[in-house]
Formats: sequence, C-alpha cells, structure tokens
Amino acid sequence: MTDELLAKGRAVQAQLWPAVASGPTGAFPAAKLAPDFYRYVAESAFGMLWSRPQLAIRDRSLVTCAQLAALGKTEELKAHLRGALNVGITQEELVEVLMQTAVYAGVPAANEALKTAAEVFGIE
Amino acid sequence: MTDELLAKGRAVQAQLWPAVASGPTGAFPAAKLAPDFYRYVAESAFGMLWSRPQLAIRDRSLVTCAQLAALGKTEELKAHLRGALNVGITQEELVEVLMQTAVYAGVPAANEALKTAAEVFGIE
Amino acid sequence: MTDELLAKGRAVQAQLWPAVASGPTGAFPAAKLAPDFYRYVAESAFGMLWSRPQLAIRDRSLVTCAQLAALGKTEELKAHLRGALNVGITQEELVEVLMQTAVYAGVPAANEALKTAAEVFGIE
Amino acid sequence: MTDELLAKGRAVQAQLWPAVASGPTGAFPAAKLAPDFYRYVAESAFGMLWSRPQLAIRDRSLVTCAQLAALGKTEELKAHLRGALNVGITQEELVEVLMQTAVYAGVPAANEALKTAAEVFGIE
Amino acid sequence: MTDELLAKGRAVQAQLWPAVASGPTGAFPAAKLAPDFYRYVAESAFGMLWSRPQLAIRDRSLVTCAQLAALGKTEELKAHLRGALNVGITQEELVEVLMQTAVYAGVPAANEALKTAAEVFGIE
Amino acid sequence: MTDELLAKGRAVQAQLWPAVASGPTGAFPAAKLAPDFYRYVAESAFGMLWSRPQLAIRDRSLVTCAQLAALGKTEELKAHLRGALNVGITQEELVEVLMQTAVYAGVPAANEALKTAAEVFGIE
Repeated sequence: MTDELLAKGRAVQAQLWPAVASGPTGAFPAAKLAPDFYRYVAESAFGMLWSRPQLAIRDRSLVTCAQLAALGKTEELKAHLRGALNVGITQEELVEVLMQTAVYAGVPAANEALKTAAEVFGIE
Repeated sequence: MTDELLAKGRAVQAQLWPAVASGPTGAFPAAKLAPDFYRYVAESAFGMLWSRPQLAIRDRSLVTCAQLAALGKTEELKAHLRGALNVGITQEELVEVLMQTAVYAGVPAANEALKTAAEVFGIE
Repeated sequence: MTDELLAKGRAVQAQLWPAVASGPTGAFPAAKLAPDFYRYVAESAFGMLWSRPQLAIRDRSLVTCAQLAALGKTEELKAHLRGALNVGITQEELVEVLMQTAVYAGVPAANEALKTAAEVFGIE
Repeated sequence: MTDELLAKGRAVQAQLWPAVASGPTGAFPAAKLAPDFYRYVAESAFGMLWSRPQLAIRDRSLVTCAQLAALGKTEELKAHLRGALNVGITQEELVEVLMQTAVYAGVPAANEALKTAAEVFGIE
Repeated sequence: MTDELLAKGRAVQAQLWPAVASGPTGAFPAAKLAPDFYRYVAESAFGMLWSRPQLAIRDRSLVTCAQLAALGKTEELKAHLRGALNVGITQEELVEVLMQTAVYAGVPAANEALKTAAEVFGIE
Repeated sequence: MTDELLAKGRAVQAQLWPAVASGPTGAFPAAKLAPDFYRYVAESAFGMLWSRPQLAIRDRSLVTCAQLAALGKTEELKAHLRGALNVGITQEELVEVLMQTAVYAGVPAANEALKTAAEVFGIE
C-alpha cells in the first residue's frame, strides 16, 4: 500500500544524497534495530511532505538546515548540509544562515553549527 | 558610534514591516523598561547580520520563520510571518515550511505554528 | 493511495477521542488553512505508528503525555490527557507521571503540566 | 520524617516571598490535584538545595531568573523576579540579566523575559 | 534525617540497576566533585518520587525513557534503557516508544535515541 | 565604524580568558570558515552587552554558566567555567549553581554540567 509513498520519498532523497542513493549501503546499527523506522521516515517525511510541489526543494533544504542548527541536532545537520550543497545552495549562503541562527537560538547554537559546517566543508 | 549600525538595521526592518516604520509607535512596556535592548536588537541582529548581502532577504525571512516555528517562539513568529509576506513570500510557501516543521521539531510545534499563521492570515 | 492509512489512523483517534470521532466537527482555523497537514498527522502519526501492535495503546498514551509535559507543549497535552482517560489510565497515574517530570525536565515543566491537568480534570 | 526538610524549605521560601508566607493562601487547582508535589518542591528544591550555605541566596535567585528566562518558563519567572527583588537584587540588575539572555538563548527568549519583567515591575 | 529517604531511593535504584547496586563502584569524577548531588538525586528523585506506590515501576521506567529521548539526553537514556530491561520492558516495546518520539519531538530526536538503543542492546 | 565596539569586547574577553588574549592563537576551522561571525560575537555580545556597567562581570559570568548548563551547551560551558574562575568565582560556588540546575532544567542537565565541570577543574 505504501510502496508509492516510498518511491516518492526515495526520489527526493536521491536529489539530496545522490551518492547514497546510487551505491550499496550496509545497514547501520539503528537501521538493523528498527528498519521500520527508516522506512517510515522515507515515506512520511520525504514521500508525504518534501515531495509536495508547493515549495522548492532548495527552500525546503535551506529551512531544514536552519531548523537543525537552531535545535542543536548536529548529526542530522551534517547530512542536510551535504544535501543542501547537492541542491544548489552555496557554502556562503549556508554560513549566513548559520550565523543568523545566533539571533534566534543563541550564539552557542550558531557556534556549534558553524563547527559542524567547517567539518562538512572539509576546512581544517 | 553605532548610529550607522542603527541606520542599517532600521532599513532592513522597514522592508519587513513598512507600516511600523512609517507610522508613529508608542513604546510598549518592555521598550520602556529596556530601551537599550531594542536598540541593541536593531543594531546587532538587523544592522550587523540581516543587512549583509551574502543571503537574500527573502531567504533570511524564510529561515527565520522556520526557526521560530521549530523553537515555539509564537509571538516573534507572528511578527516574522507578517514580514515574510512583505518581502514576497506567499502564504502557500509559509504553510509548507510550517507543515515540514513537524518532521524536525515534532507535530505539536507545527500545529502551534499553523494556528499562529491562521491568526496572522486572518482565517477564522 | 493513502486512504487505508487514513482509516487506520482514524480508528486509533476514535479510541482516544470517541466524542470527537462520533460527532460533527467544524474545521478550526488552522485546519482551514492547512487541511493537508491534519490528514498527514492522521495518516503518519496515527496510521503508521500508533496503530502498530508492538506496543499497547495504553502505553503509547502514557508516554505521549509524559513527552508533551517534558517538552512544555500544553495544548497538545490537554488533548492527550483526555485521550489517556479514555484508554483506561487513571487520574492518579497521570498525576504521578507529571510529578516525576520534575526530575527529568525540571520543576517548571511539571508545575505547568499539573496546572494543565487540573484544568482538564475540572478541578477549580 | 521529612518535616525538618519542609521547615528548612519554608524558611527559604519566606525570604523570597514574605507576603505569601505570612498570609492565608487558598490552594490553587494544581495544589488541590497534587498537594504532594508542592510539598516535594518545598522539601527537595528549597529544603535540600536552596538552603545550603555554599552559595548566597542572592546569587541563587539571580541564576534562577537567568535560567527561567533562557528556558522560556514565563510563569515561574514571574514568581522568581518578585523573589529577586525581595532578596535585594535591583530592577536594573535584572534587566541586564534578561538582556544578556539574548546572547545565550536568543533574542526571542530575552524579549519574552523583558515583557514578563515589565509586567512584574508594573510598567504600562 | 534523610537516611530513610536514601534507603528508599537506593531500593528503587537496585531494581533498575542490580549490577551497580551489588558490586563495588569507584566514584566517577563528577561524583568526586559533587558527592552531595548524587545523594540528592537518590533521595529526591528515587526516594521521594520513584518509590511512591501510585504508579508501577515499569510505567515509571517507560515514561522516563520516553522523556529522555524527547529531550535528547543521551547519556541518561543509556542508563534508563538498561534499567527498563531490568524491570521487564522488552526491546521491542522500547523501540516502539523511541520510534513514536518522532511524532512529538521530531525525527532527529527519534533517530538519536534509536542509535543509543542500538548501542545499549549491543547491535553492531 | 565598529572598531570601538571590538575593542570594548576584547577588553571583556581578556578579563575572562587572559591566557587566550595574551598569547598567539591560530584560527580554528569554524573561525576560518566564518571569521565575521567571531568578530560579530566580540562586538555584539561582549562589546555591546557584557561591557555595560549596570551589572558586575562576576554576576554576568555566574548567570552565563547557569544558562549554558540549563540549555545543555557543553562546549560553551567549558569556556565560561574557566572564565568564571578568572573573575573570582570559586569552584564551590560553581558546583552549587550546577547542582541547582537540576531544579529548573532537570537532573540530566545538572549531571551533564557537573561532568563538564569535573573535566574543567581537572578532577579524575
């Protein structure tokens, strides 16, 4: 029944993370423990929401990075910063979003997000 | 010394909230208690960050609405939803951003933000 | 495609809130603004997760009240405290959960949740 | 067994809120629902921690206001701003603490706290 | 005066973590720095609240895991997932609780909690 | 224009972290990625707020440690615990602030902050 949702979700994920979508991926420990969860995310978050045409995928990606930075969700931020670059957002734009996070979520949240971005962008 | 920063900040605020900028505004209680704070916000948040050319004001507005929804800051969200409409973001785009908030900050945060948006958009 | 999910979700919602499910309900403002969102919640939260047999609905209800109290999501907590009573959790058990919230989320979160519970339980 | 803790806690509460401690107070709804909780708070928070001599009560009061502002716990902040005035902290010092909250918890948290303070200080 | 509370608290802790309670445990650095804090937790959290008969220890454990997952408190979640297994909650039930966390606290919180659970359950 | 603000901010930072201010410091990755952000923090947080005479630097430092502990911002807490010692706050006072955090932000936040403090204070 939900195969169609899964396909729609996978199509969005392939835009954000083409390398992951095209290559073989062994399941990580949490995916072994709860495979249904990762299918649920693909179907609900990506298949039901991200795939909607009412907002450009670039905008969805930008606001997701902003929210993850504000909420201090570093691991997910890493993945979505990579996704943002893949849908055409520049490093410079991402840095601005993360800097501005200081205003709404505080300097420590912005600082942590910029450290994460430096790691994702390969800056040493 | 910081008059230049204040002018830059006020110019950004006038784009977001032209009605407020053009008309007379009596100080609200918190502004009477801490006038320096509201000048600080104009200078630092708007004069030092929002005024930077590295990110479009439309994008700054969109990510701000997204962060305020994720953080549950309803009062500030009201003001920034109004600002978003003034810099060219559509109601439909804002609704999508708020719906997607459910994925990253949970359904209650999205629900609260949509109720706030309905109020701002005059839906009864 | 997702009609089956919706039906499963509605069945769970009817256990939690039988009065709402059986009577006529005019759409509230946010539901007029974003009808797709409330269908999304019914399908994804209730149809895809709450309907799974791996955890009793009583346990799902109890942990939901606990999380909403910890996160300070008062409006949603009201609805779920009502739902909890409908699936057989007692007022006394709910009070204990909310008191214990003080340990993990702080005294103010517990205090706010107990005030909400007093309102839901009709205590004046 | 815990009467001694309760007495120690009540002594601290009487320093923060002498008017409450000296006059008659009818139980509010949450206190009727969960009287044990409010005794628990008096014994554990005030009797076990606030009463310790390792930190001045003025400092305890100041950091509590700061934390409540950062966490957005407005109701509790009201009570503790009143308490702060009663243990010798000035309005000016409290305003500075709340302004600085913008740096660590974001401008919306500081803004909300200053609005709360204006209400507590009777500014219209 | 509080020895009785400590004994009650220790009895609860022994149900959750029998191995810790029965064997020798050298103090970890934070316990050397603030021994009074860990005694405070045993007395107030476990002696005053967890020991109350109004809610089953299984339910207390379940809601604690749910709250820690929602709040992103990973270290404490590890300890309480171990405790949950010791009071009879199954891995399958815990996975369901953590999956459902996505609805109320967002997908990143659920994802982080499931990674923590995979580690606690020894899944590689 | 903002050189004066920067100088005021640097003067405050030198009180909190004299070793950093006096010695050579290579830029860390995030500072290479977003040098403007760290200048922004020096000017706005320290130059515009911390430098104000309305509150003693000791009090600013104490409430900052308290807020960072409550918000779970561990990295920033490390830096500010060091700063607190440099402006005359004792280890014993800091431990009390962190213990009391349990009341307002929950036991896990206090526990995490005390672990951080043990590391900063060199306790093994």
